[in-house]
Amino acid sequence: MKNCVIASTSTLHGSTYLEYIEKELIELYKNVNEVLFIPYARPGGISLAAYTDLAKKAFAKIGKNITGIHEYDTIENAFKKTQGVFTGGGNTFLLVDQLYRNKVMDVLRTKIEEGTPYLGTSAGSNICGLTMQTTNDMPIVYPPSFKTLGILPFNINPHYLDPDPTSTHKGETRETRIKEFHTINTPPVIGLREGSWVRVKDNDILLQGKPDARIFEKNKAPYEMSAGTSLSKLY
Amino acid sequence: MKNCVIASTSTLHGSTYLEYIEKELIELYKNVNEVLFIPYARPGGISLAAYTDLAKKAFAKIGKNITGIHEYDTIENAFKKTQGVFTGGGNTFLLVDQLYRNKVMDVLRTKIEEGTPYLGTSAGSNICGLTMQTTNDMPIVYPPSFKTLGILPFNINPHYLDPDPTSTHKGETRETRIKEFHTINTPPVIGLREGSWVRVKDNDILLQGKPDARIFEKNKAPYEMSAGTSLSKLY
Repeated sequence: MKNCVIASTSTLHGSTYLEYIEKELIELYKNVNEVLFIPYARPGGISLAAYTDLAKKAFAKIGKNITGIHEYDTIENAFKKTQGVFTGGGNTFLLVDQLYRNKVMDVLRTKIEEGTPYLGTSAGSNICGLTMQTTNDMPIVYPPSFKTLGILPFNINPHYLDPDPTSTHKGETRETRIKEFHTINTPPVIGLREGSWVRVKDNDILLQGKPDARIFEKNKAPYEMSAGTSLSKLY
Repeated sequence: MKNCVIASTSTLHGSTYLEYIEKELIELYKNVNEVLFIPYARPGGISLAAYTDLAKKAFAKIGKNITGIHEYDTIENAFKKTQGVFTGGGNTFLLVDQLYRNKVMDVLRTKIEEGTPYLGTSAGSNICGLTMQTTNDMPIVYPPSFKTLGILPFNINPHYLDPDPTSTHKGETRETRIKEFHTINTPPVIGLREGSWVRVKDNDILLQGKPDARIFEKNKAPYEMSAGTSLSKLY
């Protein structure tokens, strides 16, 4: 019953917030007027209210109303009449910490599994994987666990960046970091470049958008995958 | 009584492992023949033995013998006759996890506070800060805590990278990440570019090397600092 758009980024260079994915959102939320927004990831540290305003403006363009989860008196009430959910990007540690501390993780998983349309971007996509352990973010808070929603049977690395062959910098490349992940953990990792997203419909998991994604499986050389390819068998 | 070299990186582009900092190491370890190596961070997932071999070769050039901490039967024996310690880079989550699980964190802190010469590079420098929360690494394991040695009264961001003004990538810049850290945490952060290090001698904390470091304090605009400047008052 799942119905999700799990995107690498909210914004592409040279376009406005969520603009590149607007057609997909119209389809995802076709039976939805009210969308519950989860702003916990607070990109750059902006307030929950300022972040919710940003989402409100973008969703007004497609005729949808946004309410921030912090605007409800209880989490129970926030989810009572939820028609759709959107979790925005920012810091994944902060997001996961707040999802646990506010007791949102389990109810959000249940709602998504029951078919509530869900959009995630960046950190909001990271949490759809088995764990948040392939985030790029700084550990600015210590969350109770790295386990996340497990809507996908693998992990996401959003904003995937190819190594720069001209770089003289000695910090690890993204590929090296994911290789380190696989020395200890087994789940495949989808390196989602900006412009790509994963579309979940019931049990189908399809790669969508451009450019290709880079797939990392333990003990295998990483490889490329194009839009339209099924990710359902990847575990 | 502290005596530490806390470096951004082990290696500069175009030079060999630890080469750029060799003079500093000769001075640091002038009364030391035997150096205890902590290879827990396992860069790129290499084995403890392979990583220790790499350090052995580099230290042989300055006439020092290296033994990996995993080569001792107990942690107590590893530290019993320690004349000097070196913690290499790699994944900071893995390093901190192993330091806690093998009960090394407290004994290492005590040895450093007693004056045992200490070299850290990258992840091995990160752990000298108050917390590991300004690491760039992926959370490939869940450590028991983010608290680290606290040899320095602030945090380190090793391999500090300036934002690329030509980039069209929407992932967070390093500066944005550190700003997110400061929305929740108060310690200053030293953005140590590759080629710079912090020299701790008793209560003096001096910035050394090139290029300049970038200093981030909560509620202040970030600023530059040059070699020879004291960091002792920065908290």
